[in-house]
Amino acid sequence: MVDFMSELDVFFHPKSIAIIGASDTLKFGFATTKYLLDSKFKTFPVNIKKKEIHGHKAYKNIKDIPEEIELAIILIGNEYVLQAVKDCVKKGVKGIIIEAAGFAETGVEKYITIEKEIAQIAKEAGIRIIGPNCIGVTDFNNQFSSADMDFDKAIKGRIAIIAQSGVLGNIFVDWATDKGIGFSKTITIGNKVDVDEIDLLEYLNKDPETAVISLYLEATKRGKQFIKMLKKMEKPVLILKNGKSEIGSKAVNSHTGSMAGNDKIYDAVIKQTPGIFRVKNFYEMFNIAQVFATQPLPKGKNIAVITGSGSLGALACDEIEKQGLNLAKLSEHTISLIKSTIPNWVSIGGTIDLGPSLFETFEPSIKVIFEDKNVDSLLYIFSVPRWPLQMMGSMATKWAKHQFDLIKELTQKFNKPCVCVCFGSGWTFDFLRKAASLSNSEVNIPIMSRIKHAIIAFKMMYEFNQKLNKDLQ
Amino acid sequence: MVDFMSELDVFFHPKSIAIIGASDTLKFGFATTKYLLDSKFKTFPVNIKKKEIHGHKAYKNIKDIPEEIELAIILIGNEYVLQAVKDCVKKGVKGIIIEAAGFAETGVEKYITIEKEIAQIAKEAGIRIIGPNCIGVTDFNNQFSSADMDFDKAIKGRIAIIAQSGVLGNIFVDWATDKGIGFSKTITIGNKVDVDEIDLLEYLNKDPETAVISLYLEATKRGKQFIKMLKKMEKPVLILKNGKSEIGSKAVNSHTGSMAGNDKIYDAVIKQTPGIFRVKNFYEMFNIAQVFATQPLPKGKNIAVITGSGSLGALACDEIEKQGLNLAKLSEHTISLIKSTIPNWVSIGGTIDLGPSLFETFEPSIKVIFEDKNVDSLLYIFSVPRWPLQMMGSMATKWAKHQFDLIKELTQKFNKPCVCVCFGSGWTFDFLRKAASLSNSEVNIPIMSRIKHAIIAFKMMYEFNQKLNKDLQ
Repeated sequence: MVDFMSELDVFFHPKSIAIIGASDTLKFGFATTKYLLDSKFKTFPVNIKKKEIHGHKAYKNIKDIPEEIELAIILIGNEYVLQAVKDCVKKGVKGIIIEAAGFAETGVEKYITIEKEIAQIAKEAGIRIIGPNCIGVTDFNNQFSSADMDFDKAIKGRIAIIAQSGVLGNIFVDWATDKGIGFSKTITIGNKVDVDEIDLLEYLNKDPETAVISLYLEATKRGKQFIKMLKKMEKPVLILKNGKSEIGSKAVNSHTGSMAGNDKIYDAVIKQTPGIFRVKNFYEMFNIAQVFATQPLPKGKNIAVITGSGSLGALACDEIEKQGLNLAKLSEHTISLIKSTIPNWVSIGGTIDLGPSLFETFEPSIKVIFEDKNVDSLLYIFSVPRWPLQMMGSMATKWAKHQFDLIKELTQKFNKPCVCVCFGSGWTFDFLRKAASLSNSEVNIPIMSRIKHAIIAFKMMYEFNQKLNKDLQ
Repeated sequence: MVDFMSELDVFFHPKSIAIIGASDTLKFGFATTKYLLDSKFKTFPVNIKKKEIHGHKAYKNIKDIPEEIELAIILIGNEYVLQAVKDCVKKGVKGIIIEAAGFAETGVEKYITIEKEIAQIAKEAGIRIIGPNCIGVTDFNNQFSSADMDFDKAIKGRIAIIAQSGVLGNIFVDWATDKGIGFSKTITIGNKVDVDEIDLLEYLNKDPETAVISLYLEATKRGKQFIKMLKKMEKPVLILKNGKSEIGSKAVNSHTGSMAGNDKIYDAVIKQTPGIFRVKNFYEMFNIAQVFATQPLPKGKNIAVITGSGSLGALACDEIEKQGLNLAKLSEHTISLIKSTIPNWVSIGGTIDLGPSLFETFEPSIKVIFEDKNVDSLLYIFSVPRWPLQMMGSMATKWAKHQFDLIKELTQKFNKPCVCVCFGSGWTFDFLRKAASLSNSEVNIPIMSRIKHAIIAFKMMYEFNQKLNKDLQ
């Protein structure tokens, strides 16, 4: 339960729910209906044709439900939504999630008008609306969801998503789950006739479950308030915005009926606002958010690279320089301590390239690297072929668990962030993630597949730390 | 068997092999030893301490083997390699793969001198050497490998790899296997005392198994010949080069003892040579290579985008414009044919955004899009949540198989490339890849996770097509 009150609470902790267009056939809305009816949330199905849905009495109209309803979820076709909204007003709901598509984004005058009418009716009645053309919300804490969430798999974490696209509501969560990335809340806002990114940034800024916000935006309708809100944010916000190009901008218009606006203005605003960062794609967005959500902020720009592969280490160096950061220059003391433990064929240039000696040399090396005052963040590149891990069997798992226990302990002790970048097959990733999750520590070490994302995360987090220091002065 | 003769053949089709440092304990070289001794390749283990390795008589020295040896694989420590090379010369081998590390890349004078001496001895004896500091070669056709290849899983394809890094020899092949990407030959060249990227480009240019070459390069030692060879290439070459930055360049030096050289020169040479392309990371390299290896070349710049998600479609538009390509403008006829099959809430702007109507509308839409003369390539963005696919069970597999059968048929019929970009969990990817592999067609449709890579592939392939047309004139 969040510790602040807001009109928007109804979307995350509804006391009672009506599903208008509840379905027991395999179509859009089926999974949400079944999940909510079987859940702890008091849910009533509304279906004009059926008397029963999944064993629950169905009502012809929301007005027929004999109890108070706080939240309505509308899953019916676009032609019928306006009437359903009017019924919701009569019933006295506090919030509506309209998932149906087929409004302003079609470009058809008739549907644009209906969308405007819905907005007007809700405004007059003081009802908050999310949508249309979305899949609504998921709260990973109390497990309320209108978005077909698979809570058996999904991971609770500290990243919130606000997105003008349904794919962020379940498909990318599904991707992220595979990668060990967890969320606090996700909200897809579609054509946003009412609740928009500004309302939600304000809400999530106060949400104790959320540490970092990922925002996928096609366009804002309230430019000045958007800028003002960004400046007020106390939490880091990662923004992915499309519609940069002329054709992309047209595509945005036919997606959520938004005008993408001048991309250069968005870009300038984001660059000028400390703590707000622009990302280039969804993978980058979630990988970086995961570092923000799980790691301490780096105090400086110096990154130490511990690698099992010299070529990947060299690629990391290129990226470090490109991002304006530094490869940490280890102290003579640290280097001599590492050299005393490694075989003569191991190469310690700028990066610490342990190669196949990793199994013996990782532990003594990582300890002295964390301790080194010239090191602000650690990038650990894991590139062990599959066969030695498979042949070592449970010994390999034990070794990997020990390795992560050590990293977690050192991360906390020295308050320095560490990211593990893993190369290889899905099997190798699963092996590492399982090993990382075996320890009891609450600390989580991100394991990702892109060196670039780890380094950009360190850069943004260093900038965020500078902003915090400035705000404190 | 390749249909041309070369000194380098010995590395891919050795008639007899000696493994110097053959091992039956779990250390570097164990898997290669076991694989080759159990394989159809006539292999003799050499081990100074043991009489038997994996049930095969072991010899103290390569000179003791009573038969002719064509290829020696050296797996022993750096201190002993020079003597082993001298023994190989006496034995009269044709080729040597030195996998041991610990030479010029250490920066230690002693090891730099040994490396030079090895090069000199081999040159005088007319023996070709791959390495040191590498894991040698894999031929996916006859399944010869010195690189711990898992042939039960690895896929035979038409991409060749030349790489100055061991990770390309197995770890990235392992990654690619998961993604349905197959290879013809991989060669890791390490410090390249003899065989280098120029020799191998020449060899692979004639190799009928290879359609496209991926080259990971830290530096060339023969600049002029390298440029000359690039200009001679008849097959597309994708080059990933690091050491762009000062610190990256130092890291390269301590990896393979190479001097990275002025990156701007490499960049200019690649840009000025038609058919040679620079890529930014390993994932981009392999995803693009897979499109080259499996798809016809596009005749123009117009890409049609069929998507299940409007936001992903809009992001694709931004990338198309960024790469200087065009979103295909479908003919009025095509649009009216699509509109006659889709529900009124489906949005046909520039992209064809089928949304959740995909299951019904994909087939009629894809047919008329392939047929449209304004379309040169097709990007198909698959973003269906996991639950409907899982609930549909075998029906979903049948639908997906049918979808890929259709794409494959149309790709061949109209000679236009198509790439499927899939978003979601590993489960969703596996679902799609299985469906795509069910059909009997020899055509392969790449399924990847990055829109950007698909679009860059179309761009490079269009440029390659222009080069071919020019060469024909």
